[in-house]
Amino acid sequence: MADGFTLANLPYGSIRRAPAAEARLCVALGTEAIELAPLAKRLDGIPPELIDAPNLDRLLAADAIVWAELREALQRTLAADGPPPEASFPLDDALPCLPFTVGDYVDFYSSLEHATNLGRMFRPDADPLLPNWRHLPVGYHGRSGTVVVSGTPVRRPRGQRPGPDGPTWGPSARLDIELELGFVTAGAPNQLGEPIPIDRARERIFGFVLVNDWSARDIQAWEYQPLGPFLGKSFATSISPWVVPLAALEAHRVAGPAQDPSPLEYLRTSEPWAFDIELEVALQPAGHPSRTIARTNARELYWNPAQQLAHVASNGAIVRPGDLYASGTISGSHNGTQGSLIELTWNGERPLQLNGAARIFLEDGDTVTISGRTGAEAGGERVALGQVSGQILG
Amino acid sequence: MADGFTLANLPYGSIRRAPAAEARLCVALGTEAIELAPLAKRLDGIPPELIDAPNLDRLLAADAIVWAELREALQRTLAADGPPPEASFPLDDALPCLPFTVGDYVDFYSSLEHATNLGRMFRPDADPLLPNWRHLPVGYHGRSGTVVVSGTPVRRPRGQRPGPDGPTWGPSARLDIELELGFVTAGAPNQLGEPIPIDRARERIFGFVLVNDWSARDIQAWEYQPLGPFLGKSFATSISPWVVPLAALEAHRVAGPAQDPSPLEYLRTSEPWAFDIELEVALQPAGHPSRTIARTNARELYWNPAQQLAHVASNGAIVRPGDLYASGTISGSHNGTQGSLIELTWNGERPLQLNGAARIFLEDGDTVTISGRTGAEAGGERVALGQVSGQILG
Repeated sequence: MADGFTLANLPYGSIRRAPAAEARLCVALGTEAIELAPLAKRLDGIPPELIDAPNLDRLLAADAIVWAELREALQRTLAADGPPPEASFPLDDALPCLPFTVGDYVDFYSSLEHATNLGRMFRPDADPLLPNWRHLPVGYHGRSGTVVVSGTPVRRPRGQRPGPDGPTWGPSARLDIELELGFVTAGAPNQLGEPIPIDRARERIFGFVLVNDWSARDIQAWEYQPLGPFLGKSFATSISPWVVPLAALEAHRVAGPAQDPSPLEYLRTSEPWAFDIELEVALQPAGHPSRTIARTNARELYWNPAQQLAHVASNGAIVRPGDLYASGTISGSHNGTQGSLIELTWNGERPLQLNGAARIFLEDGDTVTISGRTGAEAGGERVALGQVSGQILG
Repeated sequence: MADGFTLANLPYGSIRRAPAAEARLCVALGTEAIELAPLAKRLDGIPPELIDAPNLDRLLAADAIVWAELREALQRTLAADGPPPEASFPLDDALPCLPFTVGDYVDFYSSLEHATNLGRMFRPDADPLLPNWRHLPVGYHGRSGTVVVSGTPVRRPRGQRPGPDGPTWGPSARLDIELELGFVTAGAPNQLGEPIPIDRARERIFGFVLVNDWSARDIQAWEYQPLGPFLGKSFATSISPWVVPLAALEAHRVAGPAQDPSPLEYLRTSEPWAFDIELEVALQPAGHPSRTIARTNARELYWNPAQQLAHVASNGAIVRPGDLYASGTISGSHNGTQGSLIELTWNGERPLQLNGAARIFLEDGDTVTISGRTGAEAGGERVALGQVSGQILG
């Protein structure tokens, strides 16, 4: 997990050293976590209260120039003098907390392959993509109060499941994952009624986390008409503990897929806003070894973060520091590159074989771990996104 | 507006006395706002920091026993000694702020008549109610960051509107209102994975506000498949400034409509959880007199607040202090009792005549004001919910 936590990465997290200790803002470097507050004296011009903090909230409230100054100052002092011994401790001992207080949480649906797969499964006789899909990044608001950090156990949700004689009540029998990449916003909020132009996205996108958007397909299928997903999603959304700054991913920005038709003006950007980030999903049944069940790449996403942000604010909605925007399930076009079990098993037609334990959906005791790091295209050192992991409790 | 702000009501708000002043937690009584902090010495046993505060956030974090103690102590001292003169000022001078920090915002769809009307309009050849509607309170998460207090101007949103040759970009031409009743939760959050039984709803429902869920019907119609409303709603949601405690509405609780089929066990309650609250909507075109365009009653809602809360938490989702839960549009079955323009005008077939200014949807400069007070059934003094008002800017 620590491979890729280089000085060029330097992700931020909110970490406790012991279960009863207070959470402190840290960076990860190599195999160590480094608390930032003891570095304050070394960081000329950085307001100490930004880093003498439990988490990223205060830094996210600051402007992009401040994020850049802090990052540069940290890289300089850590390269020159290393961390103060009292400030660093092994990542293996780090107990992560949520890295920031989540404002609004939006979940998009930005993978063409994922949307196409689901359309093929559930509307086999129609165009798999709905008419709006190629014109705007479809999305919805999720529940920010149940966004949890990696390592938090996830209890299988109970709910109404469809049945031939009406709904019944009980545990979800179709508990799934969704492999996603999320970004957190920062900087001064726009005024109500004032959109954020797409070429200002860089001033508002602070960094990235991995997201597992746990999904109860049976609850979702029964409830979602006509207002969208609700309890089938709101029981838990897990994010990785280390927020990788956008600045750390600069070298790994690539052109995304061609968009046809050309999007409306407010969604057009000439900058490369896709990211060469390799992603994988591992599933470990209790008492069994872990196995990788999917490999894909975030560069396949049709709609990119700048377009997602510009779209969210295009109606004048306020974007606050700490808002979380997730990509939607990232799926490729080949078998084994899909980011959800419902796609990997083609709605149950092709169960996964895991060293003797077959799976269509998740069983109690299963642990799912999503990990990510930048790909090889840019050369040089990889930048790790770390992992987001969670075990299902019955 | 102040009629009904009795001692038996005593709603809470976050009020500034002047544009540059700090917001302070207040109650409304008669025609006065009363700042609470100066009353601290008189309130034995109430932690002063709960009321020496800018808004309701600290009180909402406390348990229901504390809300009850504060309310009783305030009623006793205000009845016996009146407010300290330096603490009270005319309601007419009160500048309201958001009464609490909104956690998650959920919008339901709990009026049978509203859901039926929309079904009839948009699916004329099918059953107007979808199969899930009578089994669960359908709802979705809205954007908490653009919940604003009454009086905040609302800029007409721009967005993608459907057209014969694909979407075009521009101002919404179908800007609507939705008349709703909302409640705010309080008390210690449930643990992730632990539902809130319906008979504990009283410990988590603090009080009520009026809600105008502004809606851009053209943006919504194009975007909402398959994940539900998003930018058609997220540009603004207005709430009334005074939070009326559940305790103030006790005498006005009534049995709701019969539910057929009987809901599943977790949604069953023998308590009366509907509220006899008379509601009306007034529309004032710029330069014209205001006219009442709709009158209805919250008691018509099919799904009640206890059921909404139990449903939201039934999958183990955390309910935090400050979450806002809105009812969905409240509509009756007769013409003139519907809580949205799209229903009142039957999708434009019957424009409203407003002393010479005809309306199908809102025009720039229009001001919409929703007001509410308890009905006559319980006898005795009415309890005012106050008003939520907003003007459309172009």
